[in-house]
Amino acid sequence: MKKLFVLALLALSVIGINAQETVGRKVSDLATPVVNNDNSVTFLIDAPNAKEVTLDGNFLDTRSVDVPGFGTVKQTVPVKLTKGNDGVWSYTTGELSPDLYTYSFTIDGIRAIDPNNAYTYRDIASYSNYFLIGGKESHDYFVQEVPHGTVSHVWYPGDRLGLPRRRMTVYTPAEYESNPGKQYPVLYLMHGSGGDEDSWIELGRAAQILDNLIADGRAVPMVVVMINGNGAQEAKPGEYPNSMYKPLMLNPHTSDGSFEYAFPDVEKFVQSHYRVYTDKAHTATAGLSMGGVNAVYLSAFYPDKFDYVGVFSARLMDLDRVPKTTEAHPKVYQDITAKLDRQFKTSPKYYLIAIGSDDFLMQYNKDMRKMFDERGYKYDFLETTGGHEWKNWRKYLVYFLPKLFK
Amino acid sequence: MKKLFVLALLALSVIGINAQETVGRKVSDLATPVVNNDNSVTFLIDAPNAKEVTLDGNFLDTRSVDVPGFGTVKQTVPVKLTKGNDGVWSYTTGELSPDLYTYSFTIDGIRAIDPNNAYTYRDIASYSNYFLIGGKESHDYFVQEVPHGTVSHVWYPGDRLGLPRRRMTVYTPAEYESNPGKQYPVLYLMHGSGGDEDSWIELGRAAQILDNLIADGRAVPMVVVMINGNGAQEAKPGEYPNSMYKPLMLNPHTSDGSFEYAFPDVEKFVQSHYRVYTDKAHTATAGLSMGGVNAVYLSAFYPDKFDYVGVFSARLMDLDRVPKTTEAHPKVYQDITAKLDRQFKTSPKYYLIAIGSDDFLMQYNKDMRKMFDERGYKYDFLETTGGHEWKNWRKYLVYFLPKLFK
Repeated sequence: MKKLFVLALLALSVIGINAQETVGRKVSDLATPVVNNDNSVTFLIDAPNAKEVTLDGNFLDTRSVDVPGFGTVKQTVPVKLTKGNDGVWSYTTGELSPDLYTYSFTIDGIRAIDPNNAYTYRDIASYSNYFLIGGKESHDYFVQEVPHGTVSHVWYPGDRLGLPRRRMTVYTPAEYESNPGKQYPVLYLMHGSGGDEDSWIELGRAAQILDNLIADGRAVPMVVVMINGNGAQEAKPGEYPNSMYKPLMLNPHTSDGSFEYAFPDVEKFVQSHYRVYTDKAHTATAGLSMGGVNAVYLSAFYPDKFDYVGVFSARLMDLDRVPKTTEAHPKVYQDITAKLDRQFKTSPKYYLIAIGSDDFLMQYNKDMRKMFDERGYKYDFLETTGGHEWKNWRKYLVYFLPKLFK
Repeated sequence: MKKLFVLALLALSVIGINAQETVGRKVSDLATPVVNNDNSVTFLIDAPNAKEVTLDGNFLDTRSVDVPGFGTVKQTVPVKLTKGNDGVWSYTTGELSPDLYTYSFTIDGIRAIDPNNAYTYRDIASYSNYFLIGGKESHDYFVQEVPHGTVSHVWYPGDRLGLPRRRMTVYTPAEYESNPGKQYPVLYLMHGSGGDEDSWIELGRAAQILDNLIADGRAVPMVVVMINGNGAQEAKPGEYPNSMYKPLMLNPHTSDGSFEYAFPDVEKFVQSHYRVYTDKAHTATAGLSMGGVNAVYLSAFYPDKFDYVGVFSARLMDLDRVPKTTEAHPKVYQDITAKLDRQFKTSPKYYLIAIGSDDFLMQYNKDMRKMFDERGYKYDFLETTGGHEWKNWRKYLVYFLPKLFK
C-alpha cells in the first residue's frame, strides 16, 4: 500500500499536479545549467514553440553604454541560444572562473527564470537564477561541512523612525549557544539602494562566508547585525503591513540621515538581547553602495563607536550640499570634514575603502580618497576588477572580515 | 550632487542596469495582478512577441483527471489571456473569496513567473507568484500591525540520522525575549513530501498566523519548531554541502521511520536551547500530508510526549505492510493498532483529523477514521472543501492553534 501511495504521488507528479500546491504543471526535467569538466557552462531550455531565446548573465561580455549627463557604464551583452531539433535551446559559455554567477532567460521578449533551476535570488524586483563554479576563489561562498551559525529575523522597536517595529537579520556564530558566558564582537552590516535586511544573507552569501571564515580561524566568531537601511520601511517589502508593492531601487528616507540618526535603536536592542561587547574595539560597521555611504557617516557621526569600518563601492555625499538640504536629520551629513577630522584624530584600527575598476562611482571614490590622503587619514584601499555588483561585495566581505577584532 | 547621484541611479535603472546585480534588464512597470473593487483580479503581462499566453492558478475551475491505477483527481484548467493592441495580454477573473492565491504564466509553452510581481513561493522545484484577497477569512495570512515573533534558522546535531548537523526553523513568540523567566509550550510542525523546514514559514504563512492569533489571544504564546522530515537531508536543498540538486517530491529516507526515530535529537536540542516545558500537557505535534503521517506515528511511537496532535490531509500507512518492510526503523510502523491503543488509553487532550473533500487521500482518511471510531479513540474531525493543497493547510493551522494548551 505504501507502494501504491508512492506510485500515486509519482503519477500526480508526472501528470502535473503538484501535491503541495495545485498550480504546478509538468516542466521538463533537464538538468541545467550544466557545469562541464572544463568549467564551461551549458544552459538548456525546452521551448519548442519559442521564436527567440536569449541568455543574460554576469559572466558574459560587457559593452559600454552612455547614460546621458552621466557618462559611460558597462552592461552585459545577452547572447542567443540555438534551437535543437528536439525543441531544446542551448548555449555553452567559455571557461568560467570560480565564482557565484546569476542569469536569466528572455523568451520571445519576456524575462523568465530557468524552470529547471530552483536556485534563485530576488534583486530589488526581479528574479535571477544562480549557480556556483567551484575553486579556491569561490570556496567561501559554498556551504561547507563546517559548523553553521544561526540566522534570525528579529523585530526591534523603531522609536527614532516613528515606526512601531523594525526587522533586522542577525547572524550568531555556531559556537554562540555553547558558550553562554562568552561575549562577542559585533559587526553592523548594511545593504545598498533597493536592498533590505536580508540582502547580505541572500545575495551576499554572508552566512556561508562567515561560517567558513570562522571555521578556518580566518575570522573571529562575531555577531553580525544586518539592518534595514530604508528609513520608511518596517522591514523588507512583503514583511510589514500593506507592503506588497513592487520593490523600488530608490526608497523614501534613504540618504537623508534617518539611518544614522536611528542607529541607537538598533544598538540598544542588540546590546540588550545579544551577548556583545559594547566598546569601540569590539564594534565594526560596513556597507555596500548606499550602505557604504551609511558606514562613512555612521562612523563619523558616532566617532567613539566603531574601530573597524568597511566602505564598499561608495563615496562621500557632496560637501556643499548640506546647507541646502531637506534631509530629515541634516546634522548627520553637515560638516563631514570636521566629523572625519575628529574620528581620525584617534584613528579607527582599520578602515577599508574598496571599489571595482569599472564602478560608476569610481571618480567620486577617487575624490574621497584624495580628501582622505590630504588630511592624513589612515585607511586600506582595495581595487578589484568589475563594477558595482555583488560579485565584488562578496569578495570585499571575505577580505574585510579577517581584519576585524584582532 | 546628491541629485546627480539619484539621477544616475534612475538612469541606470531605466536603461536596464541593475545596480545590485548587472544581469537585470528593463521589465515593464505594469502593476499586476490588480485586485479590483469587486475582488475580481486582473492579470497583465507585456508580451508583444508571444503567440500564446496562459494563466494557471489555484482560483481557476478544476476538472477531473484520471490517474491510471489510482482514480480521479482534480486539476485546475489554465485559461488563455487576450492580447491587446499595445502588446499587453490580460485576463480578469470573477470575484475571488478572501484567501492567498498562487499563479504562474505559460508563455509560448514555457512556465514563467510574473515579471511584475516580486512575491513568489518555491514549491518543490517550481516557482509561483502569490497575492492575497483581503477579508475575514484571510485576515490571519496578512502581516498585521501586531508584535511579531522571531523566526530563526538553527542547526542541531543529527546524531540519530548519522548526519553532522541538521537545520530547523524555530518561531519564538514576540514576548519571548521580554519574559526571560517564563517557560513556553512547544509545537513540533511538519511539512509534506517535497517540502522542508521552511515550507510552513513560506507557503504556510505560519509566522503571520501565529503572530495574529497570539496577538488576539486566540492562541497562547508558544514556541514552534519546524523540522526537516527528509531523513537524508541536513537541510533544505541548497543549504547543505553538495545539495544544489533539483528538489524532489520523493526524497530518500522519508516514511521509513527515520523521522520518528530521530525525533529525540530534535527534542533534546529544543529543550536545552529554548525555554519550553517538557511535559506532555505542553507539547503538541502536527503535520500535513507526509507530515500528517509523521504526526500519527510520532505521537503513537512516543505515547507519553504529545497531548495535542494535528493530522492534516493524511492517512495511516498500510497495516499489513510492515513485516515486509525495508524501513530503516521498522519498529516505528509495526503494530500501529497496539501503539494507538496504548496512546489513546490516556487519550490525548486534543487530536484533530482534517481533510478536504476533494483530497486524493479521502478514502484512506475515511479508513483511518473508521478504525479510530471502531476502537473508540476520541478525536475532532474537520472536513473542508478543496483538496490536497496549502489553501487548506493554512486553514487547518488557524483551526488547530486555538485548541492548544488550554
